[in-house]
Amino acid sequence: MAQITFKISESPDVVIHANKGDRLLDIARDANVAIDAPCSGNATCGKCKVKLVSGAVDSPKTQHITEEEYAAGWRLACVSKVLDEDLVIEVPDIASAYKSRMKVADLSSPEEVAIFEKIKSDIEGSGIALTNDMAMVELTMSAPSLDDTMPDNERLTWAIEAAVGAEKVILPFTVIKKLPDVIRKDDFKVKAVYKMSGSRCFVYDIYPADENPGIVGLAIDIGTTTVSSVLIDMQTGEILAKGSAGNGQIRYGADVINRIVEQTKPGGVKKLQKAIIDDTLNPMIANMCRSIGIKPGQIYRMSLASNSTMNHLFMGVNADPLRMEPYIPTFFHMKNIYGKDLNLIINPNADIIFAPNIGSYVGGDITAGTLASGIWNSEEFSVFIDLGTNGEIVFGNSDFLMSCACSAGPAFEGGDISCGMRATDGAIEAVTIDKETMEPNLTIIGDEGQKPIGLCGSGIIDIIAELFRCGIVNAKGQLVREGRRVKVDEDGMKSYVIAFKEDTGAVKDVEITEVDIDSFIRAKGAIYSGIITLVESLGFDMSIVDNVYVAGGIGSGINMKNAVRIGMLPDIPLEKYHYIGNSSLAGSYAMLLSNEAEDKVTELASSMTYLELSTHPGYMDSFVAACFIPHTDANLFPSVQNMED
Amino acid sequence: MAQITFKISESPDVVIHANKGDRLLDIARDANVAIDAPCSGNATCGKCKVKLVSGAVDSPKTQHITEEEYAAGWRLACVSKVLDEDLVIEVPDIASAYKSRMKVADLSSPEEVAIFEKIKSDIEGSGIALTNDMAMVELTMSAPSLDDTMPDNERLTWAIEAAVGAEKVILPFTVIKKLPDVIRKDDFKVKAVYKMSGSRCFVYDIYPADENPGIVGLAIDIGTTTVSSVLIDMQTGEILAKGSAGNGQIRYGADVINRIVEQTKPGGVKKLQKAIIDDTLNPMIANMCRSIGIKPGQIYRMSLASNSTMNHLFMGVNADPLRMEPYIPTFFHMKNIYGKDLNLIINPNADIIFAPNIGSYVGGDITAGTLASGIWNSEEFSVFIDLGTNGEIVFGNSDFLMSCACSAGPAFEGGDISCGMRATDGAIEAVTIDKETMEPNLTIIGDEGQKPIGLCGSGIIDIIAELFRCGIVNAKGQLVREGRRVKVDEDGMKSYVIAFKEDTGAVKDVEITEVDIDSFIRAKGAIYSGIITLVESLGFDMSIVDNVYVAGGIGSGINMKNAVRIGMLPDIPLEKYHYIGNSSLAGSYAMLLSNEAEDKVTELASSMTYLELSTHPGYMDSFVAACFIPHTDANLFPSVQNMED
Repeated sequence: MAQITFKISESPDVVIHANKGDRLLDIARDANVAIDAPCSGNATCGKCKVKLVSGAVDSPKTQHITEEEYAAGWRLACVSKVLDEDLVIEVPDIASAYKSRMKVADLSSPEEVAIFEKIKSDIEGSGIALTNDMAMVELTMSAPSLDDTMPDNERLTWAIEAAVGAEKVILPFTVIKKLPDVIRKDDFKVKAVYKMSGSRCFVYDIYPADENPGIVGLAIDIGTTTVSSVLIDMQTGEILAKGSAGNGQIRYGADVINRIVEQTKPGGVKKLQKAIIDDTLNPMIANMCRSIGIKPGQIYRMSLASNSTMNHLFMGVNADPLRMEPYIPTFFHMKNIYGKDLNLIINPNADIIFAPNIGSYVGGDITAGTLASGIWNSEEFSVFIDLGTNGEIVFGNSDFLMSCACSAGPAFEGGDISCGMRATDGAIEAVTIDKETMEPNLTIIGDEGQKPIGLCGSGIIDIIAELFRCGIVNAKGQLVREGRRVKVDEDGMKSYVIAFKEDTGAVKDVEITEVDIDSFIRAKGAIYSGIITLVESLGFDMSIVDNVYVAGGIGSGINMKNAVRIGMLPDIPLEKYHYIGNSSLAGSYAMLLSNEAEDKVTELASSMTYLELSTHPGYMDSFVAACFIPHTDANLFPSVQNMED
Repeated sequence: MAQITFKISESPDVVIHANKGDRLLDIARDANVAIDAPCSGNATCGKCKVKLVSGAVDSPKTQHITEEEYAAGWRLACVSKVLDEDLVIEVPDIASAYKSRMKVADLSSPEEVAIFEKIKSDIEGSGIALTNDMAMVELTMSAPSLDDTMPDNERLTWAIEAAVGAEKVILPFTVIKKLPDVIRKDDFKVKAVYKMSGSRCFVYDIYPADENPGIVGLAIDIGTTTVSSVLIDMQTGEILAKGSAGNGQIRYGADVINRIVEQTKPGGVKKLQKAIIDDTLNPMIANMCRSIGIKPGQIYRMSLASNSTMNHLFMGVNADPLRMEPYIPTFFHMKNIYGKDLNLIINPNADIIFAPNIGSYVGGDITAGTLASGIWNSEEFSVFIDLGTNGEIVFGNSDFLMSCACSAGPAFEGGDISCGMRATDGAIEAVTIDKETMEPNLTIIGDEGQKPIGLCGSGIIDIIAELFRCGIVNAKGQLVREGRRVKVDEDGMKSYVIAFKEDTGAVKDVEITEVDIDSFIRAKGAIYSGIITLVESLGFDMSIVDNVYVAGGIGSGINMKNAVRIGMLPDIPLEKYHYIGNSSLAGSYAMLLSNEAEDKVTELASSMTYLELSTHPGYMDSFVAACFIPHTDANLFPSVQNMED
């Protein structure tokens, strides 16, 4: 037995015992130490680097570790095995920036609030009532006496029946448990939080009448990489708190396929469910509640928008059939699920509302996002694109909706890119490059003085567009200029240095390699060919499209001109493009607040058809042709001819 | 800090650290070591004796410990405080016999089965159908393909709708979680356990079609002292297993009042709930399931009969209002409670059915027991008496039912009596005494050669009747003969030795003291005066009564002649008396098996009136007059004149 000590920035040390031959990555996972491993520990991504502070491990040299790094103690956790000796291991900043860290957003930011104000007015403008079936009522009962010995639950039931006109009142165990104390606290005056279904009244909670609890709801978007959520006042729709966190499952793989494989191992389903619920959602919810001074038990409803794999893993359901022909989910839609069914810290009686999936690869994030995009509410033809860890596209109008999924990979959320990261502190979200000097000018997420750590999605689009505009990379993605920013390693691989370690104080440069650029070109090619194939499959061309709504939590927005310049989006007038932020969360919010919006998403889902791109004639040709900057057929991108605009 | 080691017979040692000044009883409770403390640690009952094996404590001498015992290391745990030194403490056998020990009954015993066969035929004979709403259906579905990509939950829902004619099918989270694996295990053939409510079908569970699971239900009687239960086949009513255990709450007091006081302390409600659910029910359920090779998750329904305090503590509801004027329970009846709401190991979706209370002191054990007694199904006037930790009495027929509760105390279950114990191995359940030699002849529960440990309820009735018959005690309960069996201690208190320690090998004699006899006379006086007052309150006398059904788990039965001889039961013809065993469990069983029986208990409860004895004119006089053997008015007991019958 060797003692392994993990030193993690800003967190207490984690000490665990391991046997000779155990893999460092497995030990870290067992100890709940987040080490970034997008390839799920297959030694291909090179992201699970850790630093030996003391002790030695059995670890081969790999192309992902330079000689200099190896000498400094850097090892890949996925290929390092414990020997007989104790170890002290540093888990580096780049991983901790990527891992499950909570952020409670500043609600004083008017942009944050505006997004939800807009969805409210859009939804309401489409004729959907912004109301739900939850309410609160104040009740005054007579105190019991020797002549009036009615038990507390009947006393409360009668009072509620009289007050709200219910024929049947349901008091769940949580209400029964607190009933004798609460009913006596303010002399048999109570407030009850309830919902009506027909003449049936379900009571979520009770309070002494002199307290002012409020009815709180929680809207969540579980992305493969990032989880976002808002707490709202269920009666007004007001945003009370906003939170985000990395999806704690990231250490079991960056994409859904690796996670599905991981959950097929013994205990895997529980492990993946625990990673999202116990390690990600519960701490995030607790933080948000703390920030506004409420208890998680006051959250009486939760809505969830997520892709099919994420909602299966959230439910603790084996997702393996999703990835194997004939690709059958356990559910599209799910009802009758409550807080107490999962290990969530919200009220045990809280209804959990799911945005329905329409298949294994188009999930609730897209059906909820489609609602938020508004494309279903106009006769104009629109495209809705969600750039998440994969890319999903919906095309249609008020008459029809058709969707497809592109295997774009996690590039837009920082995966598959050596210096990629999600859009959190230290992420470069926008870049311009001086054509002459090749020096970059960076916009970095975080406080004044924040050093750059890596690139988030919008930054990747910008840097590739700028490298291309400046002639630093060619149409094939090769680095073709020389200078202090262009490095060549011993294997001849070239990279462009975005920030030198001398300037950032980090252990290595922030740089984008030709391999990264190649990965990204394939991702953008998948998106472009997906859009074109989807629109053309119905006999249209892009000229019919009036609006393109681009969503995704990839920074504060996308530079659409750059996205067109690199050939990721079709070359149509820029004013047709609209960045709509996190449409999945916006749709989740609308479903939470409005029963009619919830029904509408179900209706949209059941009417939406699905186009399987991989077997669609012409898709592969279209994809291969799109794997250039901007495209093999430059005539498709007339506006890119003059790039100095 | 001192280290305290508790040595418990047949169990591993328990080691815990304590501070100077801590009470041994509190330390034992914290460590989950059961020490008998019926008076809840007030130094009045003398039952919490423990033996110091090494170390010393700060512990005064009390009347409950003889000089000889004190010298041998015996101390009362409730008055002993830790000093600076480590301790080794033996928790004696008498306590472990009394504590929460599991017993899974031998079903080969025909008497065990006969009790439930009788309730089945009685119930059925009264026109109540022995059927319930649970069923199992086998479903054959088509396997999905690329052309038939319906998700698993819709596939199952459609199949169930078609098979059972349901309009709405509800699949809870537990079914969703296992769905993808179960549905594929036997090629899309499954068995579903479900219940129908109107056109709504709730699915409890699913199995691959090649498994033969069975639908199992659990009927429980939670007594203040003893918990009893049966596992049954919900389709046939067959008893699959029978179990019993001491109520784990016993260490917080022998009677309901002490436990209610204990649960008002911080954390008390959770502590008492844990004692019954985690420490008593769950291990008992696990044992029963193991004995028949099923998993606790296969228990899909549970019915519970118990007194009001027990069902409040079971639910984790503050029971304090029950004991304080105006004595208001939180509930009489409770619905919509499921396995997952409590920490029970049964199926999370299992319905928990409660036999309703009719007040703070007449609970679900009595309403369920009334059903089992059958007194509601005849024009004949009957009395139903449940001798539990208290005594409750119901008088009536098919036209009316009236009930009362006697503060008889726990004498019938072995409480309040120095050598009292519940009816488990080592309990003396029947006694005769040779009038000449004064030597007793004992019937002891347990295997051949079992030594006597103490007296259970039926044994106490017998011994007092026999002591009276033999002229060893007089009508006031005083020991008036001399001989080797009659001891006198230094304070002049007399006792009759039932078994000498030299013969049993125990640390002390099994004996009944004048104080015990006095306690019991008050208990039997309360029962007698309760019966008489209840019957007379309606203008009748005992001659109108055709049947008296006596219930209670106080041994294998009651010697009715002895019970009359000591004036516990009225002197009416012996053939009118019927011992019906545990009527609470029998009623619980009927409610579990039959929806109509469940409804009938609710109906009986709502029609049953309650007579408050303590304020009823004449009750106190009647009680005082009954506190003799057999009674101050010997004319009320003509048959007792010739006791040699």
